[in-house]
Amino acid sequence: MKKVAVVGVAQTKFSGPQEKTGVELFAEAATEAITESNLTPKDIKALFVGNALADFEEGQGMIQSYAAENIGCLYVPANRYEGACASASMAVRDAFIWVASGYYDIVLAGGVERAATMGTGLATRTFAMFSDAHYEYPAGVTFPAVFAMLAHLYADTYKIPLQKLREQMAWVTIQSYRHGSVNPKGQFYGKNADMTVEKVLGSFVVATPLTLHDCCPFSDGAAVVILASEEAAKKLTNKPVFVTGIGQASCGTLSNQSDYLPRIRAREVSSQQAYDMAGLKPEDIDVCELHDCFSIASLIAAESLGFFDYGTSGEAWQRGEADIGGKVAINPSGGLKSKGHPIGATGAGQVYEIVRQMRGEVESERQVENVKTGLTDTLGGDGGTLVNIILERGW
Amino acid sequence: MKKVAVVGVAQTKFSGPQEKTGVELFAEAATEAITESNLTPKDIKALFVGNALADFEEGQGMIQSYAAENIGCLYVPANRYEGACASASMAVRDAFIWVASGYYDIVLAGGVERAATMGTGLATRTFAMFSDAHYEYPAGVTFPAVFAMLAHLYADTYKIPLQKLREQMAWVTIQSYRHGSVNPKGQFYGKNADMTVEKVLGSFVVATPLTLHDCCPFSDGAAVVILASEEAAKKLTNKPVFVTGIGQASCGTLSNQSDYLPRIRAREVSSQQAYDMAGLKPEDIDVCELHDCFSIASLIAAESLGFFDYGTSGEAWQRGEADIGGKVAINPSGGLKSKGHPIGATGAGQVYEIVRQMRGEVESERQVENVKTGLTDTLGGDGGTLVNIILERGW
Repeated sequence: MKKVAVVGVAQTKFSGPQEKTGVELFAEAATEAITESNLTPKDIKALFVGNALADFEEGQGMIQSYAAENIGCLYVPANRYEGACASASMAVRDAFIWVASGYYDIVLAGGVERAATMGTGLATRTFAMFSDAHYEYPAGVTFPAVFAMLAHLYADTYKIPLQKLREQMAWVTIQSYRHGSVNPKGQFYGKNADMTVEKVLGSFVVATPLTLHDCCPFSDGAAVVILASEEAAKKLTNKPVFVTGIGQASCGTLSNQSDYLPRIRAREVSSQQAYDMAGLKPEDIDVCELHDCFSIASLIAAESLGFFDYGTSGEAWQRGEADIGGKVAINPSGGLKSKGHPIGATGAGQVYEIVRQMRGEVESERQVENVKTGLTDTLGGDGGTLVNIILERGW
Repeated sequence: MKKVAVVGVAQTKFSGPQEKTGVELFAEAATEAITESNLTPKDIKALFVGNALADFEEGQGMIQSYAAENIGCLYVPANRYEGACASASMAVRDAFIWVASGYYDIVLAGGVERAATMGTGLATRTFAMFSDAHYEYPAGVTFPAVFAMLAHLYADTYKIPLQKLREQMAWVTIQSYRHGSVNPKGQFYGKNADMTVEKVLGSFVVATPLTLHDCCPFSDGAAVVILASEEAAKKLTNKPVFVTGIGQASCGTLSNQSDYLPRIRAREVSSQQAYDMAGLKPEDIDVCELHDCFSIASLIAAESLGFFDYGTSGEAWQRGEADIGGKVAINPSGGLKSKGHPIGATGAGQVYEIVRQMRGEVESERQVENVKTGLTDTLGGDGGTLVNIILERGW
């Protein structure tokens, strides 16, 4: 297997409803990533797109083919991957193996979504398709409901009074909003920096105990990563970021995981694969962009990724251990909760953030010092797909 | 790169509307393929599913995760590929690279669709999403319209009187129906064996010059292929079928291909990749399952695949050169037009047919003698995705 490097990254601003089509959004990010990589569209050997909703949202199936044409990557193989929120991470992981195998030297992978343009109410209902459609969704299992249940279960499992857990979750939100408020590519840029526990707890209830500020927004946006073999990378950049670990696993229905919840078993299987492949442990990770679709999701993820003991991550957040300068800097981008969550693009957006952190290119208020290693964590649905990617600085 | 073998195949009956869910259909084929491969679900290292419409048709996104759980492949990576009609071929091609790279020794790949259950009228309109949604679809470009236009263009380009072309297309239909009438896994099993040119031309017009019998049906069904490394294959079967060539390419909008039509440029790029990789030429192929979504599509495909000169394949069909015992046996399964076309499953169904032909396992009336090489050809949309796979007998 060849070493695989990220040679270029790009991301559109993650935003509320906007006017570009999915193809146009993806092309915006792809063109910027190709330019940053010192490449032209003709150098791209294959193009992989994560996307969940373009068929529903704008009536465009097989979006990858039109995206490839639009950016001038003519007649290349173009794949669409759908793993709900983890769609782009799936695309990046697959691009990794095509490059690692030596079959292609340069592959463009990313994702795009117009989830905000769809409208929040419709998006929540439509997106519930990405849970089990035959038994669980008809029982009312939209994703806010799933994570509300997980919050209750988390409180019960670890004997944390619900009010205390609500406060811990509020601290997660406060940190994410603070980081995201200084991220110009984020949906809540310039907003919510003055969030308080009281404001979080006092905002309207979405699904008890989750309030509005415990939930990420729906977003429009695209993000793109260009992977190259080590040989190709040497000619393109003096700051290659190597993909040294990948993992992926699927759970099925939520009910089938019930002995394991609130932990998501797929995450533990997936992250272990990535750590083993990279030869790293959780304590070796400098920055982590994890899947905080809800504030409770951050607590659950950080524990399964090995950063904190089970039932203790709320305290860790309150002590600043998950913050910049702490044990591990979690979601310095603002995460899904503040940077935004354009479903099919999110995983590539996480890679974008880690690569930019390594290069020291982010805003000073949210720059982590001397980042050598990073981990992405993307959850599709309620465990249907879990992807982890470990990145290491190559200079 | 390691040699990759098909060690097991399975297909549900392709049919009209039926009662199983997509997960259940896929599981039926997957379980049979696993059993045929002398494996258990625990041996499957990854599971790749082609699917285009499950979110629209039954409200099930991320179907691969629920399919993996259903058949007992717990916590494996499960990917969904969407490339319209070529979705399953994309999944199989991707499974190939994961095995060829040495990363996994055994991968299950296939596809599933319930396009018939969706209802023909709704399916045609919905499926038009897999053309360009912003300019071409709003202009009335459903797929029957696309192929009707290609038929006119074909007649014009090669100076064939339209009535003569209509008769040539009828012969394509007659051959497909004859083969499919003796394929118990086909949708038109036991039907249409007595088709005549007069009946084809006299059936109702779908889009001039295409009549009902020029068009494939929408179908429900699933098909699954299990790929293994040569080493693993040796322990599992004494009849391995090797994947020796793969190709894939994308065109974008139909209008962007206008200098090239009625030829589909992506097919010529893709099939050349596959031929080059296998070190074979068109004349080396014994059996070909090609994408005959409409009878005109067969003529166009057979030429770009190199079997007949441009503008002459209609005559070749009439002379029996595309039939069993001819120059190349095309669609002995009955093809999409008679075996059926469950969109996301079709490509895996093509591999299923070729493997069974090589093993000498199909009904005697449609068994090709001594099959050593086979080619699949799957077209997604109107050129958005084109995948070719070359298979060679390993014993």
